[in-house]
Amino acid sequence: MSEFSLIRQYFKSIAHQRKDVLLGIGDDAACLHVPNGMELFVSTDTLVEGVHFLQTWDAYDIASRAVRVNVSDMAAMAATPSWVTLALTMPTADESWLKRFSEGLTKTLNDYHVALVGGDTTKGSLSITLTIHGLAPSGCLIQRSGAQIGDCIIVSGYLGAAAAAVCQLNQQTIDDASLSIMMHKLLHPDPRIDLIDCLRQYATAAIDISDGLAADLNHILEASHVGACLSFDAIPIHPLVRQKLSDQALDYALYGGDDYELCFTVPSSALREFDKAGIEYYCIGRVEPQLGLRMTLPTGEVMPLEAKGYSHF
Amino acid sequence: MSEFSLIRQYFKSIAHQRKDVLLGIGDDAACLHVPNGMELFVSTDTLVEGVHFLQTWDAYDIASRAVRVNVSDMAAMAATPSWVTLALTMPTADESWLKRFSEGLTKTLNDYHVALVGGDTTKGSLSITLTIHGLAPSGCLIQRSGAQIGDCIIVSGYLGAAAAAVCQLNQQTIDDASLSIMMHKLLHPDPRIDLIDCLRQYATAAIDISDGLAADLNHILEASHVGACLSFDAIPIHPLVRQKLSDQALDYALYGGDDYELCFTVPSSALREFDKAGIEYYCIGRVEPQLGLRMTLPTGEVMPLEAKGYSHF
Repeated sequence: MSEFSLIRQYFKSIAHQRKDVLLGIGDDAACLHVPNGMELFVSTDTLVEGVHFLQTWDAYDIASRAVRVNVSDMAAMAATPSWVTLALTMPTADESWLKRFSEGLTKTLNDYHVALVGGDTTKGSLSITLTIHGLAPSGCLIQRSGAQIGDCIIVSGYLGAAAAAVCQLNQQTIDDASLSIMMHKLLHPDPRIDLIDCLRQYATAAIDISDGLAADLNHILEASHVGACLSFDAIPIHPLVRQKLSDQALDYALYGGDDYELCFTVPSSALREFDKAGIEYYCIGRVEPQLGLRMTLPTGEVMPLEAKGYSHF
Repeated sequence: MSEFSLIRQYFKSIAHQRKDVLLGIGDDAACLHVPNGMELFVSTDTLVEGVHFLQTWDAYDIASRAVRVNVSDMAAMAATPSWVTLALTMPTADESWLKRFSEGLTKTLNDYHVALVGGDTTKGSLSITLTIHGLAPSGCLIQRSGAQIGDCIIVSGYLGAAAAAVCQLNQQTIDDASLSIMMHKLLHPDPRIDLIDCLRQYATAAIDISDGLAADLNHILEASHVGACLSFDAIPIHPLVRQKLSDQALDYALYGGDDYELCFTVPSSALREFDKAGIEYYCIGRVEPQLGLRMTLPTGEVMPLEAKGYSHF
């Protein structure tokens, strides 16, 4: 089966149709329309077999995760996701794998109204690189460097379930039903595009939690030349992780990553607006002038937090 | 060495600065400005070790080729290249390799006024995926499907040298000086961005010759629902290939690929304008209503041409 018939069969017509795609898959490049008054956002993420997913995983889930991880980068910039290109490297053109992969890709791209507009298929060890594009109104740029002293540090949802699932892959110590819930968080994380408007209105800095809360929050702190103190009691550890894996629960939440919730900073006045609007949020601490990351324990003691997270090398 | 220090050291500040990059490397996504009246073009190409380059190649050359191959996709769409993202997968963070790679990347991106705006580094078999972006005025979209019956088929320069170099890598039969010239065409192809204005004004269809003239021209013919007859005498075989490897020269030119010249169709009236403007071109045949690809030999005999080219699987 040639590269071209592969592309035609599995990728050409699968994805969400958008009016701003003037030319999609099948030429030397896609042609896309960016409306006047909007800025373009671009991000790239690679998933490598054996590093970001296992060979045994259903290709449907791998595609789903690849899209969601990329959509999350757009959410963190408060950009509405619009288009992706796919660079797919495979050892062989395995049709049953491709069928499941394209099903997962189609479903997930459609869920987020994102169009597949181009790509490349090559022969080699299995890896998937998506480059995602998104749009946001001019003047809405939220950078990591914008956190202000006194800002509240917000986390958008529960942390630790995906990292717990990764550890359970090596040695399962919990019941199947609990593991299944945690695996769902790992395979199908929910990028928080529902918070885009809220970020545009209130956030001074934002990041998605891919490498772990401590490491990712630290990127904001370093870029903003500030520090932070978190409250132990306020860290939103996933209730199932807290219940089933209480010894490691805090570690998973602080250092585990893969949850793709957002961490962002807002002036404290924003919390009133969040409450009024019924937005779920967890205020985990405050931005402070003293550099570094600290946590107040229930005893009142303040301990320094390492900015460690997932290291790729 | 962590992923983040890697990125900081080798990629953060290397590349061409552009005013339309509102936010570059170092956040969840880059923020880019597309001027009103321009459309965005996007293309992705992956280079895999052992398939598109050899382990023994200088990383400087690998980076140069990766950029040039991607710029060529923009040239084929008559789009001015502007920004790239880099997804780099490596087995280990080899600093001497990274140094050479970033030097080649910097030099080549600067040559084409392209900014590196983001990327991802992951652990795995060596592969390089660039996603390139370009801009062209609205209404200048040149598709593969636009070739008209009677159009002249143009090739922008000599063909066959890069394919000859690939074959000589297996078994060298020619002198070192000749091989060195051919290798230069393989490692540092010259994407024809000099022809962008000319394409915008005259081209009805265009493609860059990456898989071989026959295969790539055939993409235009199939998309346009037309055929073509080429003239044997008019195929611009690289003079050195013709001289040193006369037996395979035509095969390299027709089926070899990797030259990254452009193949495009224009109304015959355009040739007068090319002559006036001093544009070098090779008119290799005409678009005809009869489907398929044919070639007239010096004897007057017409033979069918296979649309075969480089196959990735």
